[in-house]
Amino acid sequence: MAAIVDFWFDFASTYSYPAAMRIGDAAERAGVAVRFRPFLLGPIFKAQGWDTSPFSIYEAKGRYMWRDLERLCAGLELPFRRPEPFPQNSLLAARIAVAGLAAGAIWPEEFCIAVFRAQFGEGRRIDDPSTLSAILTVFGVDAATALAAAQTDDNKARLRAQTDEAQRLGIFGAPAFIAPDGELFWGNDRLDAALAWAAR
Amino acid sequence: MAAIVDFWFDFASTYSYPAAMRIGDAAERAGVAVRFRPFLLGPIFKAQGWDTSPFSIYEAKGRYMWRDLERLCAGLELPFRRPEPFPQNSLLAARIAVAGLAAGAIWPEEFCIAVFRAQFGEGRRIDDPSTLSAILTVFGVDAATALAAAQTDDNKARLRAQTDEAQRLGIFGAPAFIAPDGELFWGNDRLDAALAWAAR
Repeated sequence: MAAIVDFWFDFASTYSYPAAMRIGDAAERAGVAVRFRPFLLGPIFKAQGWDTSPFSIYEAKGRYMWRDLERLCAGLELPFRRPEPFPQNSLLAARIAVAGLAAGAIWPEEFCIAVFRAQFGEGRRIDDPSTLSAILTVFGVDAATALAAAQTDDNKARLRAQTDEAQRLGIFGAPAFIAPDGELFWGNDRLDAALAWAAR
Repeated sequence: MAAIVDFWFDFASTYSYPAAMRIGDAAERAGVAVRFRPFLLGPIFKAQGWDTSPFSIYEAKGRYMWRDLERLCAGLELPFRRPEPFPQNSLLAARIAVAGLAAGAIWPEEFCIAVFRAQFGEGRRIDDPSTLSAILTVFGVDAATALAAAQTDDNKARLRAQTDEAQRLGIFGAPAFIAPDGELFWGNDRLDAALAWAAR
């Protein structure tokens, strides 16, 4: 049995984009399995006193982040386009992913990667249900059914519980990676270290 | 003429420790020269609304940082010991370094590296003048003379000007690296990218 690394992300998180695009191949090379764990940064940021992304609150840091992300994507040969507005409301995308993952469906991981690509590679709005429906349709998923499953009270509670779990695990930003022994790694820059830790 | 990368750091900055320990060899391999630019994060943090290190303000992030730094240092085979208190007052160390660098002395870079090692490798207090005097003495520098040069009004103004310059350049944290074309890189994780950018 391969070790499992939990990949925690918020769809609005900029550095989760390159992590999501890289993690499949990187995990395969490391001989590690990955479990996608979407959550919401909003409540975690709120607990730190922020009402939006720190990249919006701290101007110099935000300006740098966009440039750094652009450089990173160029190096990885990933398409990059800065989405407007930022941060986007990631609630619906997260609910769809969480519902699909809970149902054991085969499409959620590809859906997550496609949502990241749409937002940060093509500058599309992921708070627009039509963007998400179009992605679901590409993967042969009935969009109306997936959206309805996402919006049930049970599923809303599931995403809240997942966000609470992230906070309990010490997660304060995204992406974050947690090895089977609980070791926490934060940031796209720590993806390879997290996989190597889990593979030990 | 080798390209010059400016290495901006605050002595109290945790991730500036591995950067300071690595930058000499890494720059030599990259064929790039390095200029040490000590500054003070305090005024820059204050402008962002923080009265101390964000690692002290945001508890989960701070807890993670110490663990991450410990792992990083283990990987680099650098000694690590968490200093108490944190953050330390880095004003005197910065003034000494700035005065020595302005005078064109040969000891300041080794002094900077030794101050980082004393603080984060041995857990010593760098706000204690006797720690800094002992380091200066090791490098054959008359400590009383160096301390007096550090505390002149001109030199205090020099450090303030250097801190203003950092802020003007868009620096919001440390370590930061600036290539000859002004390209900014932030964090120990971007040291190699900065050197490669300058060497192009």
